Amino acid sequence: MLIDPLGQMSGETESLLLNASRAELVDKVIEPALRDGRLVVCDRFWDATVAYQGYGRGLPIEPLMSITMYAARGLCPDLTFLLDVPLAVSRERLRGRSADRLEGEGAAFFERVAQGYRRLAAAQPHRFMVLDGQRPEEELAVEVRTAVLSRWRG
Amino acid sequence: MLIDPLGQMSGETESLLLNASRAELVDKVIEPALRDGRLVVCDRFWDATVAYQGYGRGLPIEPLMSITMYAARGLCPDLTFLLDVPLAVSRERLRGRSADRLEGEGAAFFERVAQGYRRLAAAQPHRFMVLDGQRPEEELAVEVRTAVLSRWRG
Repeated sequence: MLIDPLGQMSGETESLLLNASRAELVDKVIEPALRDGRLVVCDRFWDATVAYQGYGRGLPIEPLMSITMYAARGLCPDLTFLLDVPLAVSRERLRGRSADRLEGEGAAFFERVAQGYRRLAAAQPHRFMVLDGQRPEEELAVEVRTAVLSRWRG
Repeated sequence: MLIDPLGQMSGETESLLLNASRAELVDKVIEPALRDGRLVVCDRFWDATVAYQGYGRGLPIEPLMSITMYAARGLCPDLTFLLDVPLAVSRERLRGRSADRLEGEGAAFFERVAQGYRRLAAAQPHRFMVLDGQRPEEELAVEVRTAVLSRWRG
């Protein structure tokens, strides 16, 4: 329902469904792994909901954050990497892939999402590490790995 | 997913999914009808989420209410009828029907739900009308209709 290109739902419904899915992920995967003392890596967590549904869809941030924290059981990542690229570059990289419901949104939407991510990163500099996503993949991988290990050891 | 007897999910996920469904109902059916000046009658609205997921499942009421109000866009029924019957009577009436995931819960769960409903009704006496669900159907129908029309005229 969330990614069906023909699907139609309000931003509120979208955010509730995304958070239902995240609640299950936290419950079944993340919390058990943390209890086992493991390091958990996600591509996207609740920053994505704030960026896409809050800044992108224009839903008020505060109530959205409450729901999002409820679903995540208050879990917050220790470290978040934001790989930032200009919209044109991201479009180019996605070319040839068929877009799902969210990916099919227009440029203005994705500019708001990107601005939202940058705002989140600026507000929490200790947690966020913003990387230039146009640098070579191997270089970025080294930087991410180094940051994770240094934070992990700390 | 919500009613599959074999489905398994946390109470938080259940409440987010139920609220996603309610957000769509409000968006696509209830709000448009209210805008047209129509009278909307539902069997169950958000009291059910507070009773089942809050009191029944034991989820903390306050954050659950925030999500529930978010999904309902703050809409509150003007008048709510609680048809109260002892658990044994309700079981007897359901006999022969195959139970869905929620209906398959045990007696203790439904006692908590019923107590939850009664608490909600006691806390908002102006909105709630509690009726003895063991009285004849025709009699109850007349009482409900009279109360609706009198409130509606008011």
